Formats: sequence, C-alpha cells, structure tokens
Amino acid sequence: MSSTPLSGTERTTLRRGKEKGRTDRRHLFEVLGAAFVCHLGVIVDDVPLVVPTIYGFDEQHLYVHGSVASRSLTRAGTTVTATVTVVDGLVLARSLFEHSVNYRSAMIVGVPVVCTDPGDKLAGLRIITEHVAPGQWDYARRPDRRELAATTILALPLAEASVKMRSGPPDDGAGPDAALGLWAGELPLHTGWRAPVPDPALAAGIAAPDHITRRSGAAAG
Amino acid sequence: MSSTPLSGTERTTLRRGKEKGRTDRRHLFEVLGAAFVCHLGVIVDDVPLVVPTIYGFDEQHLYVHGSVASRSLTRAGTTVTATVTVVDGLVLARSLFEHSVNYRSAMIVGVPVVCTDPGDKLAGLRIITEHVAPGQWDYARRPDRRELAATTILALPLAEASVKMRSGPPDDGAGPDAALGLWAGELPLHTGWRAPVPDPALAAGIAAPDHITRRSGAAAG
Repeated sequence: MSSTPLSGTERTTLRRGKEKGRTDRRHLFEVLGAAFVCHLGVIVDDVPLVVPTIYGFDEQHLYVHGSVASRSLTRAGTTVTATVTVVDGLVLARSLFEHSVNYRSAMIVGVPVVCTDPGDKLAGLRIITEHVAPGQWDYARRPDRRELAATTILALPLAEASVKMRSGPPDDGAGPDAALGLWAGELPLHTGWRAPVPDPALAAGIAAPDHITRRSGAAAG
Repeated sequence: MSSTPLSGTERTTLRRGKEKGRTDRRHLFEVLGAAFVCHLGVIVDDVPLVVPTIYGFDEQHLYVHGSVASRSLTRAGTTVTATVTVVDGLVLARSLFEHSVNYRSAMIVGVPVVCTDPGDKLAGLRIITEHVAPGQWDYARRPDRRELAATTILALPLAEASVKMRSGPPDDGAGPDAALGLWAGELPLHTGWRAPVPDPALAAGIAAPDHITRRSGAAAG
C-alpha cells in the first residue's frame, strides 16, 4: 500500500477531534479493508440521501455497483461521499461527558466515474465481489451480457478523504473524576462470520466450498 | 410501539427493490433498536457529508448529540438524513448477479430541532446514553452546566422514513442456475459484545458493575 498523504482540502480537513485524524493513506486502506458496506451520500432534490451499499477498492478507487435505474447512481458528474465505519467498542468513562466510541472511519469525497466499457465494468464487479465474498468470482456464474448491461459500476477516486480513529481507554483516568471510584474501561464490540446456512432449495450432496466455510469464526470488521 | 404507517412522500417512496420495503412503524423501531450508530447526511458547501454518530430514540424523534462547534450539527433548519443499517449476512447465490446482502436499514429524512432548554438537552442525552450504554445514566457522573452548554442535542422527527429489509436464502434456487450444481446459501454475520476491558488507570478493587458485565456475549445489532 502506498503511503502518500491524503489530501487536506477545506472540506476534508478535520475541524473537530483533530487528535483522532489520520493523514496517512495506509490508515485509509486499513479502514477500507476492515468493512464491506459503506454509506453513500448523494444529493437528490436538495436532500442528502444516505444509502448503504457494498464496495470494493484498489489503490486508486472505491467501487460501488447498483442498478442502472437506481436514482442514487445515475447522477454522474455530481459530488458524492462514501463513508466506511467500523465500530470497535464503547469507551465507558467516569463522566458521561467523556464517554466515547472506539472506531475507525473514513469519508471519501469525490466525483465518481461511471464505468461504461464492459471490461471496466467486469473489472469493477470483480473487485467488489472479491472484497465482499472472496472466492466467489471464480466459483459462481459470472454476469452475462444482459446482466452486465443492467449494472452500473461507479469508481470514486481515493484522492480526497479524511480518516478518523479512536482506540484505547477513556481519557478521564488521570482527572478529578477518577476520585469518584467508578469503574471505567472499554466494552469491545466484535463482528464475525458464523457457519454458512445452505439454501433450503439446494440439491442434496452439494457441500459449501472451502472459501466459504473457512470464513466462519473470522472477524469481519 | 405505534403501528402508524410511515409517510410515503416522493423522497422516501422506494423506487428500487420494492419487495424489500416496509411501511409499518414497528419495522422502523426494529431497525433503530438493533443498532446504536447512524450515518448522518448533511449538505455542507454543496457536498453531502456523511458522518457516523451514536443515537437514541423515542416514539417521536431520533436524538443525536455533538459538540456545539461541529459543523454538521450547527446548520439548524436544513434537511438532513439519518441512516441506520444492520448487516445480517451475505446471500451467496448460484450467479453473481443474484448475490445480495441480508440487512435491515432505515433512512429518516427531516429538519432537526436543536434542543436549547437544559431540561430538554438532559432528556435527549439520557435517551442517547441509555440506548448506547444502558445503566450508565444512573452510574456515571452526569453532565454539569459547563459540559451541557458545550453539547448540542438534535431531535430529528420520525415522521418521514423509509425502511428496507432483506432476509432469507438467495432467489435463484428455483431458476435455471440451480442446475449448475453450485452451493448457495447465507453466510450470517454476528455482532456482539465481548468482556469489558478495565482502564489501566483504574484503581484496584473497582469491579465492573452488572449492567456492563451482563452485556458480554449479547448481540449488538
């Protein structure tokens, strides 16, 4: 992964919580690698719609897909944001004011490119598929011409982004509130895969492939 | 919980995936009760910023808090959205085109009210606290006058919202792709609390209270 600093434009320069800001690209890739759903922000009729969707990424772009008919994906040329958030736990302090959340979050701002070339669309879909469900690109049936035509792939440049992270214990352990004698610490949150559940319509004798079963128990986020 | 139908205005009427739409308020409350972080959408300088933040709710409002200095919370009178998403698992189909995600999501659209009365602010903070960290309102030190003055509470009416949910196996079990003989099913995702981690600065002999320890192992989402 490259370690080029993230851009620090007006809109992605952090104004609050600067101690939580990160400006190294490896932190951006750490966040992107730790989740698979982002929240896409797009302005429609003066309303900032926020829509969850899966994504994939490479060194230069975040890729999202959707139906050609989706209103949030058909506004090419307008600025959107994609925010990825991993919640790692609660920070329980002596005072409610110092309560916090341990998290890793990235907000990417940019004008997405709509992929029109079938080869580019397939490449984008492959990146998304292999990020969300590694191994399925080579296992499941790939999109045919009709399915590919019905799919939009957007590539959002990873040029402008802000990354925020918090970890560790609460901040009031050395302050006057420590004298209150209250318990304080972290309550970690864990997200992980469980065992695969076969489709009830599945014919007998078809076992789940290794690339699926081996995810069980693994962390996701 | 009330079961008044959600409003179906132009901007929250689902245009895609109607089979996934829910119009009963109990589904909205189910989603809000299953998570504690929302993604807040707010337009700043023509950009739809998407910011993660904790929330609480009652029958009429979603409450979020923030610093008075936060740019995303100081634009009173403008329309914002708050999207809450719980990801329940991956839907692995025979074709990549039929791959999907099992999830529960709600997007609330509205003009938030900025709480200015100290009593209203405390009530909102209590709702947020007891949703995110039940028991801490009565356990930890509550905000003093200075801390309360530095905190903004926004109440977003729950009048206009769209709710989408998907659950169950993939949709191609009865189609021609079933003949491919590929495994298909769900890969469930689970989010839960782990054991609390004491602040290293904690004085000896202070045990975590029951309201914290009993969350360990419980689902969150």
